Amino acid sequence: MGCMQSFRQCCDQPKNTNIRISLPAVCFVWQIAMIILFGIFIRYNGESDVHWKENNKLSNISTSDVENEFYFRYPSFQDVHVMVFVGFGFLMTFVKRYSFGAVGFNFLIAAFGLQWALLMQGWFHTLDPVDGKIKIGVESLINADFCAASCLIAYGAVLGKVSPVQLLVMTLFGVTLYSVDEYIILNLIHARDAGGSMVIHTFGAYYGLSISWMLYRPNLDKRLSCSVYHSDVFAMIGTLFLWMFWPSFNSAISYHGDGQHRAAINTYLSLAASVLTTVAMSSLFQKTGKLDMVHIQNSTLAGGVAVGTAAEFMLMPYGSLIVGFICGVISTFGYVYITPFLEKHMKIHDTCGINNLHAMPGVIGGIVGAVTAAAASEETYGKEGLINTFDFTGEWSNMVPSLQGAHQAAGLCVALCFGIGGGIIVGCILRMPIWGDAPDDQCFEDELYWEVPEDEESILPVV
Amino acid sequence: MGCMQSFRQCCDQPKNTNIRISLPAVCFVWQIAMIILFGIFIRYNGESDVHWKENNKLSNISTSDVENEFYFRYPSFQDVHVMVFVGFGFLMTFVKRYSFGAVGFNFLIAAFGLQWALLMQGWFHTLDPVDGKIKIGVESLINADFCAASCLIAYGAVLGKVSPVQLLVMTLFGVTLYSVDEYIILNLIHARDAGGSMVIHTFGAYYGLSISWMLYRPNLDKRLSCSVYHSDVFAMIGTLFLWMFWPSFNSAISYHGDGQHRAAINTYLSLAASVLTTVAMSSLFQKTGKLDMVHIQNSTLAGGVAVGTAAEFMLMPYGSLIVGFICGVISTFGYVYITPFLEKHMKIHDTCGINNLHAMPGVIGGIVGAVTAAAASEETYGKEGLINTFDFTGEWSNMVPSLQGAHQAAGLCVALCFGIGGGIIVGCILRMPIWGDAPDDQCFEDELYWEVPEDEESILPVV
Amino acid sequence: MGCMQSFRQCCDQPKNTNIRISLPAVCFVWQIAMIILFGIFIRYNGESDVHWKENNKLSNISTSDVENEFYFRYPSFQDVHVMVFVGFGFLMTFVKRYSFGAVGFNFLIAAFGLQWALLMQGWFHTLDPVDGKIKIGVESLINADFCAASCLIAYGAVLGKVSPVQLLVMTLFGVTLYSVDEYIILNLIHARDAGGSMVIHTFGAYYGLSISWMLYRPNLDKRLSCSVYHSDVFAMIGTLFLWMFWPSFNSAISYHGDGQHRAAINTYLSLAASVLTTVAMSSLFQKTGKLDMVHIQNSTLAGGVAVGTAAEFMLMPYGSLIVGFICGVISTFGYVYITPFLEKHMKIHDTCGINNLHAMPGVIGGIVGAVTAAAASEETYGKEGLINTFDFTGEWSNMVPSLQGAHQAAGLCVALCFGIGGGIIVGCILRMPIWGDAPDDQCFEDELYWEVPEDEESILPVV
Repeated sequence: MGCMQSFRQCCDQPKNTNIRISLPAVCFVWQIAMIILFGIFIRYNGESDVHWKENNKLSNISTSDVENEFYFRYPSFQDVHVMVFVGFGFLMTFVKRYSFGAVGFNFLIAAFGLQWALLMQGWFHTLDPVDGKIKIGVESLINADFCAASCLIAYGAVLGKVSPVQLLVMTLFGVTLYSVDEYIILNLIHARDAGGSMVIHTFGAYYGLSISWMLYRPNLDKRLSCSVYHSDVFAMIGTLFLWMFWPSFNSAISYHGDGQHRAAINTYLSLAASVLTTVAMSSLFQKTGKLDMVHIQNSTLAGGVAVGTAAEFMLMPYGSLIVGFICGVISTFGYVYITPFLEKHMKIHDTCGINNLHAMPGVIGGIVGAVTAAAASEETYGKEGLINTFDFTGEWSNMVPSLQGAHQAAGLCVALCFGIGGGIIVGCILRMPIWGDAPDDQCFEDELYWEVPEDEESILPVV
Repeated sequence: MGCMQSFRQCCDQPKNTNIRISLPAVCFVWQIAMIILFGIFIRYNGESDVHWKENNKLSNISTSDVENEFYFRYPSFQDVHVMVFVGFGFLMTFVKRYSFGAVGFNFLIAAFGLQWALLMQGWFHTLDPVDGKIKIGVESLINADFCAASCLIAYGAVLGKVSPVQLLVMTLFGVTLYSVDEYIILNLIHARDAGGSMVIHTFGAYYGLSISWMLYRPNLDKRLSCSVYHSDVFAMIGTLFLWMFWPSFNSAISYHGDGQHRAAINTYLSLAASVLTTVAMSSLFQKTGKLDMVHIQNSTLAGGVAVGTAAEFMLMPYGSLIVGFICGVISTFGYVYITPFLEKHMKIHDTCGINNLHAMPGVIGGIVGAVTAAAASEETYGKEGLINTFDFTGEWSNMVPSLQGAHQAAGLCVALCFGIGGGIIVGCILRMPIWGDAPDDQCFEDELYWEVPEDEESILPVV
Repeated sequence: MGCMQSFRQCCDQPKNTNIRISLPAVCFVWQIAMIILFGIFIRYNGESDVHWKENNKLSNISTSDVENEFYFRYPSFQDVHVMVFVGFGFLMTFVKRYSFGAVGFNFLIAAFGLQWALLMQGWFHTLDPVDGKIKIGVESLINADFCAASCLIAYGAVLGKVSPVQLLVMTLFGVTLYSVDEYIILNLIHARDAGGSMVIHTFGAYYGLSISWMLYRPNLDKRLSCSVYHSDVFAMIGTLFLWMFWPSFNSAISYHGDGQHRAAINTYLSLAASVLTTVAMSSLFQKTGKLDMVHIQNSTLAGGVAVGTAAEFMLMPYGSLIVGFICGVISTFGYVYITPFLEKHMKIHDTCGINNLHAMPGVIGGIVGAVTAAAASEETYGKEGLINTFDFTGEWSNMVPSLQGAHQAAGLCVALCFGIGGGIIVGCILRMPIWGDAPDDQCFEDELYWEVPEDEESILPVV
């Protein structure tokens, strides 16, 4: 930790925030690279290719048009899409003068990340061995959005303190790490993680927290990151779209039929329970029982994070409520006590409190998944149900639930390691004084990277 | 009414608005009770249970995965979900300093109400006689959202004048009354009400108006509930999401295929007509033809309310337009003349004007439903069509359309009785001076129940 | 052009902005006319009629309920609906004191236009020759929304400078022209245009620009149309909902199965590429690399416009990225150089910059469509694929791709002619001094047509 400190100091030089060369350069070079790589590697998959109907006929499969994967997953995909762009984007608009940065850079990162994710995830998951091409369909789009989401979670920790170029670098590495991490957890370890408690939330949150630790600014004035009345209302747009569409998030890539159905129900219930316990805790921590918008905006979502892994399992409706109950309590507690603690004693400044919304609930979600998997019985699931739910097929046909529980736990550890390890390395890279980040007194200020209109309000009093 | 008055006065004591004990206590106790009751009673239904595929095979039903109820109803469910949380929540943000309360308490009430609704509606509708368990699926979630919606409608009448604890009590009773009411109307009386003109809107609105009557504050300064420029724009978010997704609301639980299809078309048309007549009336009532945001925010939605019951019938496209036409006119007229009348002469202060948006259009919807049902002919519907549309099966196989019309009318009366009667009783309970409601001069003020950030604007002029 | 000038001047008389008679009259008369025409002409189509199941049985078609057209298109329809009402509405709220007009008149125009579109498009496309009735279903609703969208695009050019009565007249003619235009392009010329690059965007944008040219105000103070901080955040709501749901827009009426699937993928990719090149260009054009909200709000969407025609073709993922890349660059360039040029040298004031967002990308989209169609080979598409994609059936069964390319190009020319020609004629009509439009110094000011609440901010400094 001493060496970390000295590396930090050596990077602290006067800031040059002009990004007129670096930002366009990165965007253009990257987009051209994407076009070339997509040209070499990416093609439509069987269900989005124009030969779909012909091939079905040739194979004597008499499918109705409605059995195209598109109709199973497209409505969920659109909900996930809204969560990524409006949900995460507006959730971060609460900072009084950083709304452009919140929603605009969120937009940039996501659009950048999802292209790279299609390639990275394609290489690992949907590479066709026959022609060496990645075949994409609607499920690929969902997975790319998921991957982008994990980088947006990390953005929450450093919101207002980094330049757009740093964000792009962070996303580039984040997507890469995510894809390797996901491959290890889902394919090598064979853990299940439909809603991504481990793969998306735990990884993304610890990745962001570690970066924030590396980029710690001891002299930052945190009052700059407070909200105003209307910015809090804007943030509620983000909160609500995340909250409402979380059942789609957790069920988007579950297996067809009862799998998606059950995942949606479990998530719906867990989220509802989180709202009540968040309100209770928020009121309890104030002298006169007043509610705090920060808690309502964030902790109400913790139940959705924590039920991610187990959403498609037979968690039972009351099980979902219990998960939501616990997470609402812990997450609100985190905002009141753990965030200040992290900042004071660990030198981690977490702008949006992702430790409370994603990190802790993500770990809880991983544990719930492991326990639920280990406790799965043939009595509850039926023989076929066990095979379907945990995918005990092929080389995994000899797995049993108790062992699956251990694999789930192993998956959680991998996500933690990738998040923390990756974050520290990327944080080091981002400390280099070439990325155009803001000086301390201009953090949380759109003025630096945006043309900001003059407000009537700020003109009037002068007159 | 004299005794009402005296009861009112005896409850008028100095207000204690500290809710630090009561709010957390209610939330925690209630959430724990929910967990226990869900543990005892609630299980997945056949289509969300892991045995779904196995059971289909055993029963020799060769269904495609896409015939799981999930795919018929989930997109509509998500739209309804958006209406309940973003639609109702943001519609009420128009009050200049009560946006936190509008969107935040809306969130709390809905998350609270939907859990209790799953239980109450489950006991009445989906209790499995074999094992005594309630079996839930996506349709249960929609119905729970519907039930929460009726309580949110009631919230509109008392917005800004009650404490969150009062809201929870009001919701607890509201959901209970709703479920009994719904059981009587749909099952005992056998009325049809796909979009809930009677069950949701008429009940919810009269429930809220009666409570508002009981809680009347003679010395309230109504100027506190006016809007500012940006709060009106926020409210338009609510309006538009309600307006756009209303076709999903009215078709969400219609029968598969042409039923859902027709309900969506009818609602789409009725809403479009409402917009034009609302604009016309709004302009007509102002000296220079200016439009009033209150009308645009609310009366444009009246067509959706009024077409609820008849949406799945063969109302015909022009019939839908007529319904929308009439409701736009009446609702706007209501905002201009009836709301002030109710307040002045009936001592009912209706913050959001739910009388104009839900009560009157709801009653019109019930009447339209009764007339359309009574006029249904085998010529228009076909024999099978009549049976499907009005569910003339089982013990109701001898019903004829004219009699069905009478049953529809009876259903409307029941909804009115439950709304008014229930509202008066619950209003009495809410007058007790133990709930922490605001004194008159702090109504419509977030400061009382929320940590409100200091605004730049309010600081600047002092300098 | 000299005669244009003199006509302009003869119409320039003192403005009477009282619309208390004209606006209600137009709305009422029009809505009554709609009811009558719907009564005469419009009925449910086979899949939304109550006889659907009975007829399927009679025809010995054993379809599952889920094969009702409703389930193929309804989720996309709802997304398109959100784009039309929230997307276009909020995108235009950026003007600091014209947010009511942006979102409110958008609402009015769309609700007005879609009714007339159902009739006009019905007469051309779905008139049943047996009974002379127009049969509507979910696809008709999508097409009506599309048609309304083209009028909303035109609104973008004249935002803040016209009265609501003018907007209704403009929409009335716009829908009429659109429907004829669409019939010629799709049916007579047999061009394909799933996402409407030509039919919706090119037509709508040139229609609006021509009207704006006819209504040019030489003395307008453009500073009135600038934004404030929060109005830019509101506009991002519009941007994001347009951006996210554009894949649904372009795939909404593509053919079932792989057609819709592929259209969604292509649009998703094209839009992602647009975001990166827009950011790059926006940063490049500012001295210190700052981003401009106007570009982020608009040019990020250009990729969706330009991929409209070719979305359902085998454009290939990299092809979509290239289209998005180019359009992001050109559209941002347009905001920086072409919009000021048009204003200064062509006397076209384009409030929202629709030339950059719809006109140029629309034309590019038409060209991309023509080239892609001409280059279509049986190798890529397969025999059946070619027939399905380009609808080489019936009287067009002898078409070949190269000829189809020429037809696509012809379609683009027709769209341009209708847009420019129609716009000039309608612009002449709108110059008549009877429509209640604003004097120059009250443009971009809600005060004129709306009851605007007094703001706290504007009161405070006086104290």
